[in-house]
Amino acid sequence: MAEPCFDVAHLGHVELLTNRFEESLAFFVNVYGMTESGRNEESAYLRGWDDYEYCTLKLTRSESTGLGHVAYRTSSPEALERRVKVIEEMGFGIGWIEGDESHGRAYRFRDPDNHIFELYYDTRLYVAPPEERPALKNIAQRYHGRGVCVRRIDHLNLLAKNVSDIRDFMTKALGSRVTEQIQLDNGRLGGCWFTVNNKSYDIAYTEDHYGVSGRFHHITYAVDSREDVLRAADIFLENGVHIESGPHKHAIQGTFFLYVYEPAGNRVEVANAGARLILRPDWQPITWTETERKKGQAWGMKTIETFHTHGTPPVDPTKL
Amino acid sequence: MAEPCFDVAHLGHVELLTNRFEESLAFFVNVYGMTESGRNEESAYLRGWDDYEYCTLKLTRSESTGLGHVAYRTSSPEALERRVKVIEEMGFGIGWIEGDESHGRAYRFRDPDNHIFELYYDTRLYVAPPEERPALKNIAQRYHGRGVCVRRIDHLNLLAKNVSDIRDFMTKALGSRVTEQIQLDNGRLGGCWFTVNNKSYDIAYTEDHYGVSGRFHHITYAVDSREDVLRAADIFLENGVHIESGPHKHAIQGTFFLYVYEPAGNRVEVANAGARLILRPDWQPITWTETERKKGQAWGMKTIETFHTHGTPPVDPTKL
Amino acid sequence: MAEPCFDVAHLGHVELLTNRFEESLAFFVNVYGMTESGRNEESAYLRGWDDYEYCTLKLTRSESTGLGHVAYRTSSPEALERRVKVIEEMGFGIGWIEGDESHGRAYRFRDPDNHIFELYYDTRLYVAPPEERPALKNIAQRYHGRGVCVRRIDHLNLLAKNVSDIRDFMTKALGSRVTEQIQLDNGRLGGCWFTVNNKSYDIAYTEDHYGVSGRFHHITYAVDSREDVLRAADIFLENGVHIESGPHKHAIQGTFFLYVYEPAGNRVEVANAGARLILRPDWQPITWTETERKKGQAWGMKTIETFHTHGTPPVDPTKL
Amino acid sequence: MAEPCFDVAHLGHVELLTNRFEESLAFFVNVYGMTESGRNEESAYLRGWDDYEYCTLKLTRSESTGLGHVAYRTSSPEALERRVKVIEEMGFGIGWIEGDESHGRAYRFRDPDNHIFELYYDTRLYVAPPEERPALKNIAQRYHGRGVCVRRIDHLNLLAKNVSDIRDFMTKALGSRVTEQIQLDNGRLGGCWFTVNNKSYDIAYTEDHYGVSGRFHHITYAVDSREDVLRAADIFLENGVHIESGPHKHAIQGTFFLYVYEPAGNRVEVANAGARLILRPDWQPITWTETERKKGQAWGMKTIETFHTHGTPPVDPTKL
Repeated sequence: MAEPCFDVAHLGHVELLTNRFEESLAFFVNVYGMTESGRNEESAYLRGWDDYEYCTLKLTRSESTGLGHVAYRTSSPEALERRVKVIEEMGFGIGWIEGDESHGRAYRFRDPDNHIFELYYDTRLYVAPPEERPALKNIAQRYHGRGVCVRRIDHLNLLAKNVSDIRDFMTKALGSRVTEQIQLDNGRLGGCWFTVNNKSYDIAYTEDHYGVSGRFHHITYAVDSREDVLRAADIFLENGVHIESGPHKHAIQGTFFLYVYEPAGNRVEVANAGARLILRPDWQPITWTETERKKGQAWGMKTIETFHTHGTPPVDPTKL
Repeated sequence: MAEPCFDVAHLGHVELLTNRFEESLAFFVNVYGMTESGRNEESAYLRGWDDYEYCTLKLTRSESTGLGHVAYRTSSPEALERRVKVIEEMGFGIGWIEGDESHGRAYRFRDPDNHIFELYYDTRLYVAPPEERPALKNIAQRYHGRGVCVRRIDHLNLLAKNVSDIRDFMTKALGSRVTEQIQLDNGRLGGCWFTVNNKSYDIAYTEDHYGVSGRFHHITYAVDSREDVLRAADIFLENGVHIESGPHKHAIQGTFFLYVYEPAGNRVEVANAGARLILRPDWQPITWTETERKKGQAWGMKTIETFHTHGTPPVDPTKL
Repeated sequence: MAEPCFDVAHLGHVELLTNRFEESLAFFVNVYGMTESGRNEESAYLRGWDDYEYCTLKLTRSESTGLGHVAYRTSSPEALERRVKVIEEMGFGIGWIEGDESHGRAYRFRDPDNHIFELYYDTRLYVAPPEERPALKNIAQRYHGRGVCVRRIDHLNLLAKNVSDIRDFMTKALGSRVTEQIQLDNGRLGGCWFTVNNKSYDIAYTEDHYGVSGRFHHITYAVDSREDVLRAADIFLENGVHIESGPHKHAIQGTFFLYVYEPAGNRVEVANAGARLILRPDWQPITWTETERKKGQAWGMKTIETFHTHGTPPVDPTKL
Repeated sequence: MAEPCFDVAHLGHVELLTNRFEESLAFFVNVYGMTESGRNEESAYLRGWDDYEYCTLKLTRSESTGLGHVAYRTSSPEALERRVKVIEEMGFGIGWIEGDESHGRAYRFRDPDNHIFELYYDTRLYVAPPEERPALKNIAQRYHGRGVCVRRIDHLNLLAKNVSDIRDFMTKALGSRVTEQIQLDNGRLGGCWFTVNNKSYDIAYTEDHYGVSGRFHHITYAVDSREDVLRAADIFLENGVHIESGPHKHAIQGTFFLYVYEPAGNRVEVANAGARLILRPDWQPITWTETERKKGQAWGMKTIETFHTHGTPPVDPTKL
């Protein structure tokens, strides 16, 4: 068995598209509790209070919703070169870009379901202005306490037509490890959870209900405790945000979750994982059967139907 | 800058010496809430409910207290060989041992302060007997709810005469990263926190108050929430365990801590780190000055004097 | 407007019938975490760790399940006499009994739906044996940490054919205040929550789905935090207890709830109310319409169907 | 034994004096998280989000700090008359006042240590403007999430030269019950905790270290969980508020506490009591000896010296 690679250090940022830019931005800043690092005509650059980079969420004006791109930061410039070489050989490369307001040159590629990814090493650090400096110097920004006050980017979930193809791709392209997966009775993979480091997952893919490509399921930021997730539920409730499901505990990965829709319809999660980490170097993927999945979430709650069908951009089932 | 090495996967186990074996064992099982995997004439093998290995705490009968040895698991057999070669070249090697009830062959070495370490890859997994099988298959053992019910080994803290020497040693020998440190006004390092992975630390060293070598400060297991730490305080209180300090939040590392003495006098911690991880590959060590340390813990509580002086085995100051 | 009466001090105990006595008792002691004060051939006397009385749950062998009786303690012997006089005049009295292992003489009566109640003042205090004495003298028993470790009796919920009749009865007989209620579109009361003191409720009635009389919906014990409720969910899960619903937050009363079935089928709740109290002397009942109820629980979760239909003893719908 | 009286329903509001009005107001609104109901030239009227009255904290401009007055609401107009009669007969009455922006006519009196009290029944309810209306109709105002976001007034603590005199006074004048007390070795009462309802206390008195009269120790608002108290500590830290002590658990009453100084120097607490209530009608006061008190707080933390000496207005010990 190959040892963990760790050429890729961590999930860096996600670009999310919105056709209600101002409303989405107000949600992410005032209700979800992120901090805006900067803005240009097209995009706002956002981050959680302990994200060390300038941007972990790039919110971009668009005619629709869904994913712009996903970016991972590598462990070094050399690791970046190694990964690019692998991806080019796999035939999924797109090419280098100059960079962005939030990071230096980056390599673009696509996954087998046509989601766009980037890899980069040179980044822009968040430098707290005086009024945002923390009392303790080992965190990136003061705990400001605004809204849900999410701490850091945790993971995202994408939809794909063929999750098995994604599994092959992610383990080779990024050196990701599969930590958990759903094996359907029909032989297909229903879902797959991946990590490039010791977090239990940084990206997950589940099968697209409508069989279309390139869609987005949700993005997740971490808070420090389950109480923070419960508190988030009250904040969403009082601010008229649509709560889709939770708070509850996932059977898969054990995450304590809460899903809402931001104003443009993209699904957003607040989550806490407790003390769970994947430290074991020879971790064996946990495989859940369809029968096991029918037991519902950890404490028996049945998963709400929209969780299986709603993705962004939306699909008109009558036109498929 | 060198990229993270990750030849060493994680802290594996700690051997702790006790001159009150039965009382210490009763504490770790019934109050601290660990599970005993096995026992022989000399030692009991213990673990937290989500530790995947057979043993993360080896409790050994002794005439005194303190550290037996510390063991880290490598990422692969090849990584083990690479590390052994480095350590031998550094002149700190002791040699290979056959293994132990809880793992296969291991390489012994010492740190500059004469604490004994081991590196191993082949390990013995914990296999839950029927009555300990979890309802959800992605955790190692059921959440049994007994006592403090600690989840997994988190870190340990050792005392050393010269922490600067330790810093040089750990970064070379294990490829550890320094995440935080205390710079004393006299130019010496007062303390140093290291990690081999994405946890914010797995071992820390602080300067021995009495200037002796090889002593132990504390071992820590993680629980899922700060509420679990508060609950632990009530459990310790009701069981007559000496609570030294906490619950409170450390300024350094931000850990929510609670320190007690097990019956033989070794210091034991229950802790929660929230969602904090060191994912940044080019993390810059946080350096705390003596002035900053004088502000006390995160919320201003002054550190209790015994925290600076008490270690195991105990020292008789009149005989120094 | 009449001022609060407070002749009745608090809910004292509930007698619950079980046709699986040993299994029910094992559940209440080992999983729910109650302490047994004593036992005779027919019944076990149980209490939460901070209940000051000898018994708050009397578990009684029976051929079926459901409610034995409900007992309230009055504020004084004189208050007991005053209440008895009122109830006798109302025509619902049954008569005095000598008492029970857990209290002195008591007056029996029935509510309009034929549930049996008792009022008593003379009680038997819990006296902690040495091994159960708390470290702090202001709680009744040590925090033992076993199972869910419920703190004190909180409330119960009964089913009734006609909740409006119950409202008239409880406010007159016990001097209870109505704190919240459900007004159905058909003009009937769907549910009603009552309190005799500053807790937001100590008994609730909801309309029996099958239109029968005398049935029991659930009994609830309080824990100190929502984290305790979440922890309870894991304990129930690992012990094979059927979790019906939750953890989630009720819209009505704002209680953070978790419902399970004990082995004989009686519904049991673990709950936390936060800092909520009804201190206002001229409290106005909160009335929820059917439309408002259709929004689901506080954070939008739809109430599970069995919550509306399952009661004890069970009803065979085919025989109605 | 007399039965509980309950003529007095609950602590209504506290008037606090400040010589830094703007700074104190900014603290209470933005950091402590209260809502301002109204303001005139002398005072601001504040409340927690679930306080049903217009005002529970009246913040008043002054040349110094400390207590303006304490007000309790009675259970009815008749109960008000009964209490006034008792207090007048005791010789502590001052007389009726017309009322205030926040309530109707009130009766003024003093305690034996010359703190000013008021009793009133007619009150002004808080009516939430549209932007503050809660999503759930059973709370007074939306959970706004600003700052510490305290829920409701809980209790206050005053200093007195002679606590025994206070005990006699409060039990007669308000019908308060003594729930806990400190018996000093010198025969004096070191502290005494009182309640008029089922909360474990609404006012406490402790002996003034300097032997002067009329001083104020602290005011406390309740939050829903201990996690809220821990979160408050981070908010105070990040806002430069002086944290005096905590978070920790009091041995007396078991309250989970956190003490800070508002900008003018008055001590303010954030607290959570868990599920604790005093429901027993014949509650026997818990008496703590000086020896017991020397064990420190619940988990052993020594009480900080300023907690025993600092009160408002400040005393210059050199001038006593």
